[in-house]
Amino acid sequence: MTTGQVRTGRCYGVGVGPGDPELLTVKAVRLLEQCPVVAYFCAARKESNARRVVQQHLRPEHTEMQLVYPVTTEPVPPAEYENLLVDFYDESAKRLAEVLDGGDHVAVLCEGDPFFFGSYMYVHSRLSARYDTEVVPGVSSAFAGAAVLGTPLASRNEVFVVLSGVLPSAELEAQLTAADAAVIMKVGRNLEKVRAAVTRAGLLDRAHYVERATMTDQRTMPLAEADAETAPYFSMVVVPSAAAPHR
Amino acid sequence: MTTGQVRTGRCYGVGVGPGDPELLTVKAVRLLEQCPVVAYFCAARKESNARRVVQQHLRPEHTEMQLVYPVTTEPVPPAEYENLLVDFYDESAKRLAEVLDGGDHVAVLCEGDPFFFGSYMYVHSRLSARYDTEVVPGVSSAFAGAAVLGTPLASRNEVFVVLSGVLPSAELEAQLTAADAAVIMKVGRNLEKVRAAVTRAGLLDRAHYVERATMTDQRTMPLAEADAETAPYFSMVVVPSAAAPHR
Repeated sequence: MTTGQVRTGRCYGVGVGPGDPELLTVKAVRLLEQCPVVAYFCAARKESNARRVVQQHLRPEHTEMQLVYPVTTEPVPPAEYENLLVDFYDESAKRLAEVLDGGDHVAVLCEGDPFFFGSYMYVHSRLSARYDTEVVPGVSSAFAGAAVLGTPLASRNEVFVVLSGVLPSAELEAQLTAADAAVIMKVGRNLEKVRAAVTRAGLLDRAHYVERATMTDQRTMPLAEADAETAPYFSMVVVPSAAAPHR
Repeated sequence: MTTGQVRTGRCYGVGVGPGDPELLTVKAVRLLEQCPVVAYFCAARKESNARRVVQQHLRPEHTEMQLVYPVTTEPVPPAEYENLLVDFYDESAKRLAEVLDGGDHVAVLCEGDPFFFGSYMYVHSRLSARYDTEVVPGVSSAFAGAAVLGTPLASRNEVFVVLSGVLPSAELEAQLTAADAAVIMKVGRNLEKVRAAVTRAGLLDRAHYVERATMTDQRTMPLAEADAETAPYFSMVVVPSAAAPHR
C-alpha cells in the first residue's frame, strides 16, 4: 500500500444494527478488524450508541475518531443551527479525508442502516466523488421493533411506511391512513402528538410502543399505555398490518 | 433437556439478509450452530435462496427440513391456490411442531427479515401460542439495494414507503407521489407497469433498477434502461429521496 505513491484508503459506512451487538453483520465485524481507524458520531459528553454496539471488537491498536455534534451554549434559530451542522459535516469529512489520504481505511459506524436516516450520508456525499466508498447495510431498528414484539409487520402486497414523529400531526394521520403497516421513529418528545394521530387514524388498538429495541434495557407496551414524559428519542411506534398472520 | 419430561424446543425465525453470506448477523450464525434442525421454504426442484446464503454454516450433523411450496400441474383459480397454501402452511407447522415436541430447536430461515413479507410469519402464527419462538431480524433487501447503488435512501423527516410491484398502477402512482423515497419490491413481470407508474409520478430520472442486490451476479441500472423481459421476481426499484445528501 505504501510503496512509492500512497494509495488512498477506503471509506466504509458500516451499519451496526439496532443495538444488540449480536445483530452486527459478519461483514461489519470483519471490516472493524481490518480498518485501523473507526469513526463515529456522538453528542458532547455522551457515550456513542454505535460505539457501544461494536465495543467488544475495538482493540488498543484502533484509532478512534469522535465526530462530536456541535453544541451551542444558548438557543439559536434553526437556520443558524443548520449552518453549524453544515460546517460540522464539512469538518468531519475533512478529518476523514486526511486519514484516507494517508492510505488508511476508515469504518464510519452508523446505528441501524447507514443510508436510512443515518448521519453517515452527510460525510458520504462529501467524500464519495474523491474516495472509494462502500456501504454495509445493517438491520434497521424498524424491523428489530417488530422482532422484539413477536409481531409480523407486513405481508403479501401491503403498503409499509416509515414516518418520523417530528412530522405534523395531520400528515402523520394521512400517511397512517394510506398505509397497511407503519413504523414511526423519533417518537420521544413527540409521543402525545403521535398517539393522537394514531388514535385519529383508528389504529390505537394495534399500535405498540418500543423503546431501545434489542438492547438490554428494551421496553415494549401498548402505545395506549406509554408514558410521554419518559420516552427517549430512540423510541418508536410499531403499527403491524391487521392482515398479516398473527396468533 | 431430556431428563424426565422432554422440554420442547425453541422455534427461531432467522433473517438471513439479502443474499451476501457476509450480511448474516452474528446471531444468525450462532443460532445455525446451535440448532440441530434447519428448515427453509423453497420451490419444487429449485435451490432455496435462503439455504444458499447459509450454506457454509451447514454441517453433516444438521437435519435439513425442506418446506416445498405446492405446485399444480394445471392452472387453478387464485382462491383454490390460496386453499392449497393454507394446507401447506398447516402441514409445515405440523412438521416443525414434531421437531419441537422432540425437544430440538429449529432455525427457520428467511430471506431478508422474517416479519417483513417473509413466509416465516405463516408458521409463526401457527406455532407461537404453543411454543417458544424468537425472531432474529435481518438486513432487508430494500436497504441492500440502496447500499449497492451507493445512494442515500431517506434522511431527516422524510416519508419512506415500501410497495409491492403487484399493486395496481394507480395505487403505485398515488403512493409514490405521497412519499419522499420508495422501494418497490416484487418487480419482475410487473416491470413495465411499475415503470409507467414511476414515470407518471415524475420520478423516472431518479429511479434505479436493482437485481439480486449483494449477490455475486447483482445488476443495477437506471430504471429507464431495465429490460422488462428478463427481470427476475427478486428485482426491485429504488427511488431515493431527492433531498437526501447525494454526491
